[in-house]
Amino acid sequence: MSDTNAETDLAERAARLDALDGLAKLRERFTLPDGVVYLDGNSLGALPAAVPDALTDVVRRQWGELLIRSWDESGWWTAPERIGDLIAPLVGAAPGQVTVGDSTSVNLFKALVGAARMAAPGRTKLLVDATTFPTDGYIAGSAARLTGLDLVPVDPADAPGAFDGDTAVVLLNHVDYRSGRLHDLPGLTAAAHAAGALIVWDLCHSAGALPVGLDAHGVDLAVGCTYKYLNGGPGSPAYVYVAARHQGAFDSPLPGWNSHREPFAMTPGYEPAEGAARARVGTPDILSMLALESALGVWEGVAVEDVRAKSLALTDFFLECVARYVPEGKVEVVTPAGHAERGSQVSLRTEGAREVMAELISRGVVGDFRAPDVLRFGFTPLYVGFADAERAARTLGHVFG
Amino acid sequence: MSDTNAETDLAERAARLDALDGLAKLRERFTLPDGVVYLDGNSLGALPAAVPDALTDVVRRQWGELLIRSWDESGWWTAPERIGDLIAPLVGAAPGQVTVGDSTSVNLFKALVGAARMAAPGRTKLLVDATTFPTDGYIAGSAARLTGLDLVPVDPADAPGAFDGDTAVVLLNHVDYRSGRLHDLPGLTAAAHAAGALIVWDLCHSAGALPVGLDAHGVDLAVGCTYKYLNGGPGSPAYVYVAARHQGAFDSPLPGWNSHREPFAMTPGYEPAEGAARARVGTPDILSMLALESALGVWEGVAVEDVRAKSLALTDFFLECVARYVPEGKVEVVTPAGHAERGSQVSLRTEGAREVMAELISRGVVGDFRAPDVLRFGFTPLYVGFADAERAARTLGHVFG
Repeated sequence: MSDTNAETDLAERAARLDALDGLAKLRERFTLPDGVVYLDGNSLGALPAAVPDALTDVVRRQWGELLIRSWDESGWWTAPERIGDLIAPLVGAAPGQVTVGDSTSVNLFKALVGAARMAAPGRTKLLVDATTFPTDGYIAGSAARLTGLDLVPVDPADAPGAFDGDTAVVLLNHVDYRSGRLHDLPGLTAAAHAAGALIVWDLCHSAGALPVGLDAHGVDLAVGCTYKYLNGGPGSPAYVYVAARHQGAFDSPLPGWNSHREPFAMTPGYEPAEGAARARVGTPDILSMLALESALGVWEGVAVEDVRAKSLALTDFFLECVARYVPEGKVEVVTPAGHAERGSQVSLRTEGAREVMAELISRGVVGDFRAPDVLRFGFTPLYVGFADAERAARTLGHVFG
Repeated sequence: MSDTNAETDLAERAARLDALDGLAKLRERFTLPDGVVYLDGNSLGALPAAVPDALTDVVRRQWGELLIRSWDESGWWTAPERIGDLIAPLVGAAPGQVTVGDSTSVNLFKALVGAARMAAPGRTKLLVDATTFPTDGYIAGSAARLTGLDLVPVDPADAPGAFDGDTAVVLLNHVDYRSGRLHDLPGLTAAAHAAGALIVWDLCHSAGALPVGLDAHGVDLAVGCTYKYLNGGPGSPAYVYVAARHQGAFDSPLPGWNSHREPFAMTPGYEPAEGAARARVGTPDILSMLALESALGVWEGVAVEDVRAKSLALTDFFLECVARYVPEGKVEVVTPAGHAERGSQVSLRTEGAREVMAELISRGVVGDFRAPDVLRFGFTPLYVGFADAERAARTLGHVFG
C-alpha cells in the first residue's frame, strides 16, 4: 500500500473510532490550544475548562474578601481530606484514606518511614524499584538511612523472588515513567504480603489512566501526583493513601501541626489525629489545592474502566499507525505489547530522540523526550482522540521520511 | 476627659499620622474589603491587587496554551530560586541562599536534620523554644528522634544560659506567635555560636514586618512562611535559608529529584545540586508559587526599615488608644512595651477572649483569638493605617462598654 493509501485508510479508521467513542465529548471539559496534538498529559495534564473561573473565585472572593474567615467558611481547612475523597474512587479506595498535600517526594518520605515503623521487627531491607523514577530511589535512600534499613534496588520483573524474610518494606512504581510498562499490582502486593512485608505503590503514572484497586488488592500505602492524568496543574499537590487498617499505627516523620488531634489547641505535646488527617503536615496550599478540586470535576460521570478501555484502544491504534507510517528500523517500541503490561503511554526508542521530538513539537505534535533515547507519547483518554493518534504517527513518519 | 473627647482627640491624631505616613499610599497595592479594619495579616495577609490577573495569565496562557513548554519558557523550573531571591533582601540575605517551596513544617524538618548532620561531633541536644508555635516543637521532636539527638525545650528568655557543650542545634522563633514578643536574634545567634552550636530561626512572624539581618548576624539556617506579612495567599509556599558557607555540607533528609545536580539526567545515584537548589525537594507548586511572586511585587521601592518604623508607631498608637478606650482592668497587655522586644502585633489577654473577638469581628474589626485567652491584633504597615488602629481600639472599648 502506498503512503497515501495508508494515510487515507488510517485517517478514515480514526474518524470512525472517534465517532463511536463514548468519551469523545469529554474533550469539551478541557481548554486545549488549537492545532496541537497534545500527547504529554503524562507529564502535565491539560487545563480543565472550569479551573480559571474557579480559581478566580478563590483568589478574589475567598481570599480577597472573606480573608481569614475562609479557613472555615470556604472549607479551606478540610480541603486535604475532602479532595482526597475525590481522588479515592479513581484509585479504588473507600473514603477517609487519601490526604492531599505536599509533593510526591514528601509523601513518599512519609509513606516509607511510616511503613518502616510499622514493619515486622527484625527486618532489615527496604526494596526499591531499580528502574523507577529517580526521586523514589533518592527518597527511599533517605528513609532507609534514617530508619536504619538497608536499601536494596530490585528490578520489578525479578521482584517477587527478591521478597524474603528480611524484607521490611517494598516500594514499586505501578507504571514505569520511561517505558510505560504496567506492573502487576495485585500479584506483587500479594507476594510482598506472603513474605511478611509491607508494600508502598507509586501511582504517578497510573492514577486517572487505569483502575488501581488499592482497597481490593490490599495495598498498604500509596502515593501519587495529581498533575498528570488528574490534570491538577503544574506541581499541583500530591496525595498519600494510608489503608484504614494501618492508620492507627501510622507514625509520620513529618508530624506538623495540621496532623494534630486538636490543631488549634496549640499544645506543646503532639497527639496525632485519627484517620487520613494523620498524614497532613503544614498549612495546606489552598490556591493549588482548590484548582485541583475544580480539575477533578471533569471526572463527573466518568468510569475509570471506560477510560482504560479507550486508553488501550488508543495506544493499540497508535502502535498500528507507527508500524504503517514509520520506515522500518527507525524506531523500537519500548512499551510492552500485552495489555496487561501497558500503561497509558507509548515509548519509542530512536537515534537522535531529542532532535526528533523537537521536530515533532515544531510540527504541532507534543510528546516528550527522556534521556538518553526515548520518545514518550502519553494518551489521556479524556481529551485525546484517535485522529490525534493518527496525526501523531503520521507526523513522526514524515519526520523520518 | 470624657469618652467623646478622647475619641475626637485620638481620631484627629490618627488622621494627622496617616497624612504624614510615607507608606500610606502602599495600601493601593492591595484589595481590601470595604468597611473592615483588617488586623489579621499576621495570620493571612491581604490580597495584593496584582495577583488575580497574574494568576489568570499563569493558568490560561502559561498552563492552558503553552502547557509543558512553560517549564522552560515561562520560567517555572527556576521559580524556587528566583522567588527566593525576591525574599532574600527582606530577610537580609544575599542572593543564592533562599529556596521557596513546601510548607514551613517541611522546611523546618530539612533545616533541623540538615543542621544536626552538620553539628560538631558528640553533641547530643536539640534545643527548641518551649513557647513556640507548636509545629516547631513537633517537627523538632521528629528530627531529634531520627538523628538520635535529645529534644530539650527551653524558654527563650533563659536560652543563652542553656546553650552548652552538648548543644548541637538550637531552634528559636524570632517573634512569638502568641505574645508578639521579639527575641534577640543577634545576641542569641552569637550565644549559640559561642557554645559551638548551630542555630535555626523561624521567621514566620517577623519576615516582612521588621529587619532580620540573616547574613549580618551570621545565622546558620532559617525558615519562614509567606502568607503572613509577605501576603502570598493561603498556604503559599514557605522558604528555607541555608547560609552560603553551609551549603556544601547541607545534607537534606528530603533529597527529591529537584535537588539533584542534573535532574533530567534521571540517574539512579543521587548527587546534590550546588547552592540554594540543594534544599528543593519535588516538583514546585507553580500556581501558588507564581501567585507569591506577583505578591512580592508590592515590595518594590519599599525599605523594611521604614516598615519597621511604621509598625512600631502603629503598635505604640494602638496601645495608647487601648489604654484610653478600654475600661481599666478589662485587658492585660501581653506584648512587651519595649520596642526591642516587640514584633508587629499586639496581644491582649482578657476573659472571654473568644467571644470578645467574635463581637469585634461582627463590628468590622478583624483580629484573631488564640487559646486560651488571647486577642491578637496584627499590624501590617503596608496596608494598615493609624485610623484603623484607632477604630480597632475604640471598637474594643465599646465591646467592653
